[in-house]
Order: sequence, then C-alpha cells, then structure tokens
Amino acid sequence: MNYRIIFRVVGRILMAVAAFMLPAMIISFCYGEMLPGYAFLGTIVASGLCGFLLSKIKQKSRNFYAREGFVTVGLAWIVVSLFGALPFFFSGEIPNFVDALFETVSGFTTTGASILPNVEAMSHGLLYWRSFTHWLGGMGVLVFVLALGPVAGGELGDSLHLLRAESPGPQVSKLVPRMQRTAKILYGIYIVLTLIQVVLLLIGRMPVLDAVTTTFGTAGTGGFSIRANSLGAYSPYCQTVTTVFMILFGVNFSLYYLLLMREVRAVLRSEELRLYLITIFAATLIITLNILSAYGSFGEAFHHAIFQVASIITTTGFATADFNAWPELSRAILLLLMFMGACAGSTGGGLKVSRVLLAFKSARRSVHRTLRPNSVKLVHMDGELVEDSTVSEVQSYFLIYFFIMAFSVLIVSLDNFSFETSFSAVAACLNNVGPGLDVVGPTGNFASLSLLSKLVLIFDMLLGRLELYPILILFAPAVWKK
Amino acid sequence: MNYRIIFRVVGRILMAVAAFMLPAMIISFCYGEMLPGYAFLGTIVASGLCGFLLSKIKQKSRNFYAREGFVTVGLAWIVVSLFGALPFFFSGEIPNFVDALFETVSGFTTTGASILPNVEAMSHGLLYWRSFTHWLGGMGVLVFVLALGPVAGGELGDSLHLLRAESPGPQVSKLVPRMQRTAKILYGIYIVLTLIQVVLLLIGRMPVLDAVTTTFGTAGTGGFSIRANSLGAYSPYCQTVTTVFMILFGVNFSLYYLLLMREVRAVLRSEELRLYLITIFAATLIITLNILSAYGSFGEAFHHAIFQVASIITTTGFATADFNAWPELSRAILLLLMFMGACAGSTGGGLKVSRVLLAFKSARRSVHRTLRPNSVKLVHMDGELVEDSTVSEVQSYFLIYFFIMAFSVLIVSLDNFSFETSFSAVAACLNNVGPGLDVVGPTGNFASLSLLSKLVLIFDMLLGRLELYPILILFAPAVWKK
Repeated sequence: MNYRIIFRVVGRILMAVAAFMLPAMIISFCYGEMLPGYAFLGTIVASGLCGFLLSKIKQKSRNFYAREGFVTVGLAWIVVSLFGALPFFFSGEIPNFVDALFETVSGFTTTGASILPNVEAMSHGLLYWRSFTHWLGGMGVLVFVLALGPVAGGELGDSLHLLRAESPGPQVSKLVPRMQRTAKILYGIYIVLTLIQVVLLLIGRMPVLDAVTTTFGTAGTGGFSIRANSLGAYSPYCQTVTTVFMILFGVNFSLYYLLLMREVRAVLRSEELRLYLITIFAATLIITLNILSAYGSFGEAFHHAIFQVASIITTTGFATADFNAWPELSRAILLLLMFMGACAGSTGGGLKVSRVLLAFKSARRSVHRTLRPNSVKLVHMDGELVEDSTVSEVQSYFLIYFFIMAFSVLIVSLDNFSFETSFSAVAACLNNVGPGLDVVGPTGNFASLSLLSKLVLIFDMLLGRLELYPILILFAPAVWKK
Repeated sequence: MNYRIIFRVVGRILMAVAAFMLPAMIISFCYGEMLPGYAFLGTIVASGLCGFLLSKIKQKSRNFYAREGFVTVGLAWIVVSLFGALPFFFSGEIPNFVDALFETVSGFTTTGASILPNVEAMSHGLLYWRSFTHWLGGMGVLVFVLALGPVAGGELGDSLHLLRAESPGPQVSKLVPRMQRTAKILYGIYIVLTLIQVVLLLIGRMPVLDAVTTTFGTAGTGGFSIRANSLGAYSPYCQTVTTVFMILFGVNFSLYYLLLMREVRAVLRSEELRLYLITIFAATLIITLNILSAYGSFGEAFHHAIFQVASIITTTGFATADFNAWPELSRAILLLLMFMGACAGSTGGGLKVSRVLLAFKSARRSVHRTLRPNSVKLVHMDGELVEDSTVSEVQSYFLIYFFIMAFSVLIVSLDNFSFETSFSAVAACLNNVGPGLDVVGPTGNFASLSLLSKLVLIFDMLLGRLELYPILILFAPAVWKK
C-alpha cells in the first residue's frame, strides 16, 4: 500500500475543505454571528495547516492502484467529515461531538438525517455550511478537487480509480478519455443546473439564503432544509420547482452530456432512465389515489404525492407533507423507493435504478435457467451485453447491502424504539434519504437515538454514499498488511 | 412438455392423499363427529376417483426432464392443497374456502399460520388432519409417494428431478445412488425421530392426541397446535422435549445418515451445522439477557428464550411466551432468524443456513476482489470447492426472495395494518414460520387480513416451501408453449 500518496491526496482535500468553508465564515461575520465565525476561522486554520503538512509528504513511488483509490476515498471522507463537524462543535450550537459528526456526515453523504430538534435556532453561517456539505458531497469531494486541477503532482491525472471509488453506480461512465475532463464536464453540468434552480426559486420570491440552501439540498439530493417545516414552508410554485429539479438531479449526468452532444437517441435508449421515470409516475399515481380522501382535490393530492415520491426516490428527503401519517400502502411504497434510489451517475443514493434493473434481469434469467439448464442466456442493458462479472458484482452488492442492513437494525433495536423506527432509520441512512418513519419520520429527528446507534448510522451513511467498498475495505486486514 | 406423465404423477399423489385422510376420518367417527367424518369421506372419494382417472392416462413418451420435475411438483402441491382444504370447507368448520385453503397450504408448507380465531373449537378429526399435513409436507409429499414404491411405471425411479424440486437447500445430497432408496432412508429417519418424540411426550403425561399432533407440528417444523396457548398449555418438561426435537428436525437429514454410517468426522466438518448451533446459542444468550427483567430468574428466561429461538430459526412457530411483547432487540433477532431458517435438507424453511453462509462467503469474496481485481478467489464449504454456478444460484435466490418479499408487503399493506404487521406477515409466510409480530403475532391470527392478502400469502407459503422455482415456473410463458 502506497501510504504516502494517500496522505498527500487527503492533505490536498483538507486544504480544499478549508477553502470551501470561507463563504460560511464570511456569512457568519456578516450576520454578526461572532462565535460561529471564529469557529469557522479556527477550523479553516486547523484544516488548512494539517492539509498543507500532509500534502508536503514526499512520495517514494507513483503506484496508485484500485486499492489505493478505495482507501483514499474512504479515509478522505472520514477525515473531511471530522473537520467539517468542528464548526458545529466549536460554536457550541451542537455541543455533543458525535451529534456534530452525525450532522456533518449526514450532510456530506447527502443523507439529510438531522439530530437538530429545532433547526431554525441555528445561526446563518452554520445553516449555509450544513447545506453546502450536501452540494459538495453530491457530486463527490474528490471529483471536485480533481476537476480543479492536477493532484499530487499530476500523477493521478488519468487514473480512473478515484472516480470509480467515489461515483455511484455499477459501472463508471467515462465520458471522455481523460478523467480530469470528465470531472470538469460533470461539475459544469452540476453548476449550471444549480444556478438555474436558484434563479427559479428567487423568481418565486424565496429569500436568498433559503433559495441557495434549498438548491444545495436539491442538487446534492441531500434534504437539509433551514426551515422546521422543510419545503412545507414555501409556496406551491417553489415546491413544484424543487420537485422538477429533484427528478433532474436524480438522472445519470452522462445523459446530460449526451444531450449536449445531441445524441438524443442514445438518451432515449437508456433503460435506466425509462424505469426511473415510469416508477416515479406509477408510484405517484398510486399514492395520489391512496391519499385522495385526506386532501381536498386530486390536484392537491397529486402535488404532494409527486413531491414526496421525487424526494424519496432521489433520496433527497425534503417533505411538504407528513408522509408518516399517510396510509400504509403509501408508506410501504415510499419505503421501497428508498431502497431503489435514483439513477447511477446521479447525486442520488439507494441501490440505484440500474442495479435494481440488473438484479431483476439476472433473477429472471435464473428462473429460465431452471427450465433449460444447458441454455446460455445473457443479460442485456440498453441493447448491449452486460458482462457476467458485472452481474455478479451487482448480486454481491445486494447481499452485502442486506447483511449491513440486518446488522444495523439489530444494533439500533437496542434503543427499544418500534421496529418501524429502527428499520426505517437504517433504511433512511444507508440509502442516504434522511427521514424515515415513526420517531425518525419527517416531523421527527434522530436526536433521541443512543450514541451507539448514531455511530452505526454514521457508518451506514458513509457505506451508502461511497457504495460500500471504500469503507468496507478499511476493515479488511489485508489492506493494512505490509 | 410431457403433460401426460405429469398428470399421471399428480393422479398417483391424489390417490395417496385419499389414503392419508383415512385415519382422520376414522378419528372423526370415533369421536362421534359425524359431519366432519362425512366431509372426510366425501373428499376421500373425490380425491381417490380423480387420482385414479388421472393415473390411467396413457403416456406417450417417457421423457421426464428438469422442467417436468418442477412443473409436477408445483402443480401437485397446488392440487393436494385444494383437495386437502375440502374437509374443512365441507364440514362447515371453516365456511370460507379461501380461509380453508390458507389453513391447508399453511399446513402442507409447514408454515403454521392460522386464520382460526379459536382453534380449540375445532373437531378432533380436523385437528388431527390439520397437524398431519405438517408431517406430510415437512419431508415432502412426492418424496413420500416415491418412497412407497415406483411411480408411473417406475420410469421416475432414478430421476433426481423430483427430489431436487421438492427438497430444501442449494444442493441436493444424494445419499445413495438410487433416488428411491434415498427417499426411503430419509423417511425412515423421519419416522424414527417422530416416534421417539411421541413417546417422550407421552411420558410427560401429555394426552395422546396432543402428543401426536404436537409431534407432527415439530417434525414438519410446522407449528400448528391444538391449544389456543400453543405449547404454553403444557408442562416445562414437554416444552423442553419439544425444544430439543425442533432443533433436531432443523438439522440436515443427511447428517443423520452419516451418523448411522458412523462417519462422525464428516458430520463435525459440516460448517452449516456449526453455524446453525452457534446461532441458536448466541441468539438464546442475547435474548435471555434482554428479557431477564420480565422473567423471574435466569433459568426461566433461558427456558423461554431457547424455546422461541429454536421455534423461529427452525421456522416451526410454536410459542410458550408472547414474544411480540418482548423488547425490540429480541423481536428484531427473531425476525432475522425467520429469514435465516434451518439447515438445508431438513424440514425447516427460510433461506437456509447454508445459503446464508454461502451468500456471506461470496460477499466477503467480492470485497477482496475489489482489493485485488485480478485474483482468483474461490468459495469453499466443508473443505470442498463450491462451483461458481452454485454461488451464483444462491445469489439469485436471495434476489428473487427479496423481490417477492417487497411485492408481497406492498399488497398486504393495502389492508392498512401497521408496517410491522405487513412485513412480519409476509416474512412469516414466505419463510414458513407461522406467527409474525403485532396483529399476526403469536397471540393473534391471520383472520382479519383481506382476501387478496390471504391469496398472496398462500402463494408466498408455497414459494417458500418449494424454494421458489416450481411455483415461479408455472408463470413462465415458455413452459406452456408447445
């Protein structure tokens, strides 16, 4: 294992985090919030200094293989979360460090699960930072750093290992031959979509800080809101804009690139996109009918149904209605959508639509194999053959997912909340959704869970966002052996 | 598809069912219960006649391949359940036919989920038949018929297809070269163990009918009891005997055969057996500590903990305590054990210990593969190499299981019971356990579910008992094409 290069990259990222915190510090001081301002200042100095020292480590070898890529990503996210939590802790606004860490990991992993009983009591700078972590985590912290320029002497310039370890989905779409250009294109699309949403929300007369933080939460499919009512605090127009952008940010970004290249046919061929849109449509329709009696009209029911469906399937976690109080069928549908998640290559979490699709196809194949044991049947996607190793990886991914799920539910059950609470808390964190059901529902929060449960859920959020391997590998003894 | 031979075999089985009903009819008449007695008589005549006519169909070809095997098993179980439900329906003791079918399928599939609000009101003959379906379904109806003698002219004599389709587990242990002898050996062990348990219960002064039906429920890992209190109605001695025998019937029967052959070393090498026993021990210990405060002493808590753990992991479903009222950790552990289930090649349900073990090993392998993408790492079990195709089948099995689970929970959610009820009802039926949590907990029953939910759960029970494929295949259009 080439530790030196890993430390150099982590150092570089810490310096970037220090830079990312500057706007939050400025906002704090502008609002005259001195304590949070100094908390940011202290963190920026600490993070910048540590980063600078780490980045000065001399490297002996330029070897950077898959395992270095995974370990770098795993460690970087943990270190970034630890430093990102400091302003909450130093300012005293989240006095318990594990709580501060939970909130920060929830931010970076775009989960949106909160331990804050009263979000509106938090100062402006911290609210901005809290939402900004969503935006940063959505597309990937390392990808951003890579997009900015060559890292660690440029030797990672064309390595796919980092992008593969940080990007969601069973396969990495390499848009252009050079990874750094791919990172730049992805962030370019990301920034443009973000700007459009901010403008549209401002047109709807949303206050500036609200518009910016809401957009951060939408773009990263995070879900932190600066209002206790979440998106319920804003006008139906703003809610509709957010619905549309949640769905847009849940689409594979390479499709936008293809659109820019005017390859409309390739976009339409995407089975993942089709299943994603069909699922949103079908789920919205069923839930609309299911909740009709609770709302005045079909239009009103549809408005809330599609918002909640878009929020949950993209694993954003905003809410305009307390879906915890909806009938069981609607709640069960939402719980299932949490697991499905958004498209691969988007900022959304969950298992990803393409994995669910591949899993379904491989399941169907195995039924056919029983009928004709000697037949060779291949799995296709978007008209192309899917390699058996990819199918097998997807199957393993599901298995590991469910093992982690089971283990986590057991630990969280120790708190003796209802099964629904334990199950949905784990589902909401592992899938990076945010709110679950019952105690951790959209009107509740994660504050009442025990320290142990919070630590397990912190790991679940990281496991979900980084798609298991970068975190799991940190526990493999083989990694740490000479 | 060779329909003629399928019908011949189904006919043969129907005749066997008619014969199996004779003791129940005699018991009915002995107790002076005329209505149920005539209900049995009518069913015996109908079943025997249909069976006789079907078995007289002339076969044109002796082809009997895997798909014929699966379709035969799937159809046979459905037909047997339909006829088996008739006595409940004709006698008027279960006036709704879907309810009668639910109870019968629950019996044959060794689930033990009941729609009876008051089991003690049922007549003796029907109680006997209800429990006897457990015993018959546990080892397999077709296997029994095969053990009795050559079927359909003997041409199935050495075909593994039927045994493979009906026996639980990822691989079929072919004990001896001839399948019919294998079936005889399995049933021989089964009958001896059954007799020992009956004698031990009689020694504990359990009434004869209670001892016989309790043993049927234990042997088949079914869980129907003729008392409203389930095993809570009997002495701690009888409960302990049942605990031991539940665990024994959850062991792979080929290990007993190996014991008879004095191959102790091979038995000790079984990783499945070890994991099964370790899981029982660990779960019992944790639950004992978790429920300690609710019971007087460690001994009392341990007694109930091990009974419930054995009952759930073997998917029997007997209860000596209302585990629905236990703390969340214990309830979550029991819910997880439902999915794990007993050993392959036993009468128990669930995913089976060996599948869970293989899934875990394959998951671990995929983490290692991420570290070293080019390494070839193989999965071993009991010191022997497991073929990649078996690993892949196990992974597909999990996926299909979870897809069916998700779909079923959605349908059952329409009834608007709690999520815990819907989830545990499906888990309890698909894993052939019986009782779930909340409304369908050990003191509740499935009566209040809707017709649609009951039909879905009937399919889940069949899917679980026959390990998916024989039932799924009936829905594949390819099967019914010329």
